[in-house]
Amino acid sequence: MHNRQLMEWLEQHLLQLNLESTAIDYTEGYTRLGYSEEERKAMEVFESIARSLHMSVRKDQAGNRIARWEGREKLPPMALGSHVDTVKNGGAYDGVAGVLCALAAIHQLQLDGFVPVRPIEVICFAAEESACFGVSTIGSEAMAGMLDKEAICSLEDQEGLTVQEAIISAGLDWDSIQDAERQKDDVYKYLELHIEQGSRLEHAGKQFGVVTAIARPVRFLLEIIGQTNHSGTTYMDERKDALVAASSLVSFIYHRAKELSQSEKHPIVATVGTFNVSPNATTSVPGFVELGIDIRSVDDSLKSTLGKEIDHTLKDIQKEYHVESTIEKIVDNPSVFLDENFAKKIKDIGEKSGFTSMYMESGAGHDVMNMAKKWPAGLIFIPCKDGISHNPKEYASLEDLAMGSTSLTHIIKSETQ
Amino acid sequence: MHNRQLMEWLEQHLLQLNLESTAIDYTEGYTRLGYSEEERKAMEVFESIARSLHMSVRKDQAGNRIARWEGREKLPPMALGSHVDTVKNGGAYDGVAGVLCALAAIHQLQLDGFVPVRPIEVICFAAEESACFGVSTIGSEAMAGMLDKEAICSLEDQEGLTVQEAIISAGLDWDSIQDAERQKDDVYKYLELHIEQGSRLEHAGKQFGVVTAIARPVRFLLEIIGQTNHSGTTYMDERKDALVAASSLVSFIYHRAKELSQSEKHPIVATVGTFNVSPNATTSVPGFVELGIDIRSVDDSLKSTLGKEIDHTLKDIQKEYHVESTIEKIVDNPSVFLDENFAKKIKDIGEKSGFTSMYMESGAGHDVMNMAKKWPAGLIFIPCKDGISHNPKEYASLEDLAMGSTSLTHIIKSETQ
Repeated sequence: MHNRQLMEWLEQHLLQLNLESTAIDYTEGYTRLGYSEEERKAMEVFESIARSLHMSVRKDQAGNRIARWEGREKLPPMALGSHVDTVKNGGAYDGVAGVLCALAAIHQLQLDGFVPVRPIEVICFAAEESACFGVSTIGSEAMAGMLDKEAICSLEDQEGLTVQEAIISAGLDWDSIQDAERQKDDVYKYLELHIEQGSRLEHAGKQFGVVTAIARPVRFLLEIIGQTNHSGTTYMDERKDALVAASSLVSFIYHRAKELSQSEKHPIVATVGTFNVSPNATTSVPGFVELGIDIRSVDDSLKSTLGKEIDHTLKDIQKEYHVESTIEKIVDNPSVFLDENFAKKIKDIGEKSGFTSMYMESGAGHDVMNMAKKWPAGLIFIPCKDGISHNPKEYASLEDLAMGSTSLTHIIKSETQ
Repeated sequence: MHNRQLMEWLEQHLLQLNLESTAIDYTEGYTRLGYSEEERKAMEVFESIARSLHMSVRKDQAGNRIARWEGREKLPPMALGSHVDTVKNGGAYDGVAGVLCALAAIHQLQLDGFVPVRPIEVICFAAEESACFGVSTIGSEAMAGMLDKEAICSLEDQEGLTVQEAIISAGLDWDSIQDAERQKDDVYKYLELHIEQGSRLEHAGKQFGVVTAIARPVRFLLEIIGQTNHSGTTYMDERKDALVAASSLVSFIYHRAKELSQSEKHPIVATVGTFNVSPNATTSVPGFVELGIDIRSVDDSLKSTLGKEIDHTLKDIQKEYHVESTIEKIVDNPSVFLDENFAKKIKDIGEKSGFTSMYMESGAGHDVMNMAKKWPAGLIFIPCKDGISHNPKEYASLEDLAMGSTSLTHIIKSETQ
């Protein structure tokens, strides 16, 4: 298949998977929340493309769609996959790129007359993003047998819809979602392709990344409790301004994470992403701030160090600004290391195909982190423009999608013949 | 009237004006927004108390209630007043104390058999607080002939209700609200009593304050525009974090206003009261912050100095954190100085009555600032516990309310006999 034909195929099916007929919307982007009607529609497009490639498609108990091309022998399948759900006003490539390139790889292999020894699957996982309920990768957790149904059932979205209600309204049986679990010998290996969502590849001038580890978050939820008071009548030295106190903490977290990233072996990132001020009124000294901190590094001890420093700094801030505070660790996920041998093989195959690559870490979670707990697993990053992601402007070129898809064909061949 | 009877009268009518039957709610406080059904109910209580004191009551075109005790002669009335509207979850005393003490003063004078030469009015002004529409003292602006109807008509509350709609739904005629204006010779003097909303009196151990000037605000609305990005994949040194940039500005404003207050003759206060972060999501580097700054001092040039410094600091912050910003001055009110002679008279009368007092400035706006533009006007502060205000915990003792009411009787007597 000529590269130009491949790019045409990719462009056409990229539009289809984003439910577009003529052009990607880089202004409003896409909102296909997990277990929503919009995710279902994109999954139906996935199904229809897979069927056009003569694959069988089944929907499992967690809502994952599993497309399968049977091999010559009854062996555990080589699985590829990603997702089609998005954050609110997200981009057209996060998740879709992986599903699209895997399907394009099948298409290329079939055009080449390739007949696999072992079956090949392309999995479209349900509800990968945490945008809606604050919990991510529900579909792949279920498949890997890691889903804690009770822990998530009553989590709510902003409209008060619970995970359980969303799953039921997606036509699934709540009581049996954990039956989506697959056994160790039901899958051979798992491989995911995803946009980088960062700009390391761009900066390094490499064509793709081979991910060695996934930095998982530690998350804290903090309350800073000052005293709401009249902004006109409360002298500066009488204030207990929760916003001023919280601002001091935001500055500390940013600058300290920057320092640690420069001095330590592995990078660390720390973000205050949620920040809500109360009463949030023109004439009130803010009495209360709730804020959420997300810390990631593949070096779990480094996350722990920064967490302790934040705790310590918070105590200093309490004294300096006469506020009280609470801090709660709400997430503490150890980092996930991917299969070293598989990673080396992916890199070698890429190089033989003439594609430049580099080992790298992922700061974002992906379905592969769950699959890796049970099966040898790999993750390939392709570049996305300026590292912009979770944003309507998210963009990956057709050239890079084609390169990614072609890389997948080489890896699939090597694993299934 | 014995002080104990006066305190009983005050307690009973404090409850009534707060629409309570047994006790003040210091937990949830009171929400009687300007031109709301709740404000109307409290105004009806005001009317009924005034009528029980044999006063006539009229409602003007702006919704102010004007209770009047006729004098022996046809002279411009000595007017007292305040308001009964509150902020959201405000306290039981801000506004109510002034209306209550004025009515109690009338009651005391009547029990004493006092017959005024000139009429005495108690005015319950509409919509003094800016909690709802971001614009304050609508009723007294209308009475003083200062209301810019066009400037406020389309301001909205959080539910999208406009000022015009709220005024119409309060049963008023939008086209004629400016007819509430009174002429120079329709009023003799205006006197307001209000809780301090600060703790200067408490700290100084004085019984009441005689206000010489009202610090009016300069307000800025700022946007900090960074870049929303994935919190896990964007290295610290690649970020354009609008929250980190905004936090730096919040710190500067607080510390600089504190310094200036220590080094300059008049105090200055500066507050970031509104602060909204977007997208406000756990896994996103914040790309946008909108914040509102309120700066007050009776020294207008000091406000201007701090405003310029903020502008300058914002430019530094843009460079340091790679963000863009906009700044708009949305309010620029020169400070208001009250009538010096009237203030001296109030202080002298207080001292003769055995009450300790002090001159002071007001950091909060009050209806008196509008009335002072047209008529000689005075403002008395009584203490409120720990300076807490705009808060359910707001509290003034019955002793202090009684002291305030008794002071008013002495001043009224001196002005109307």
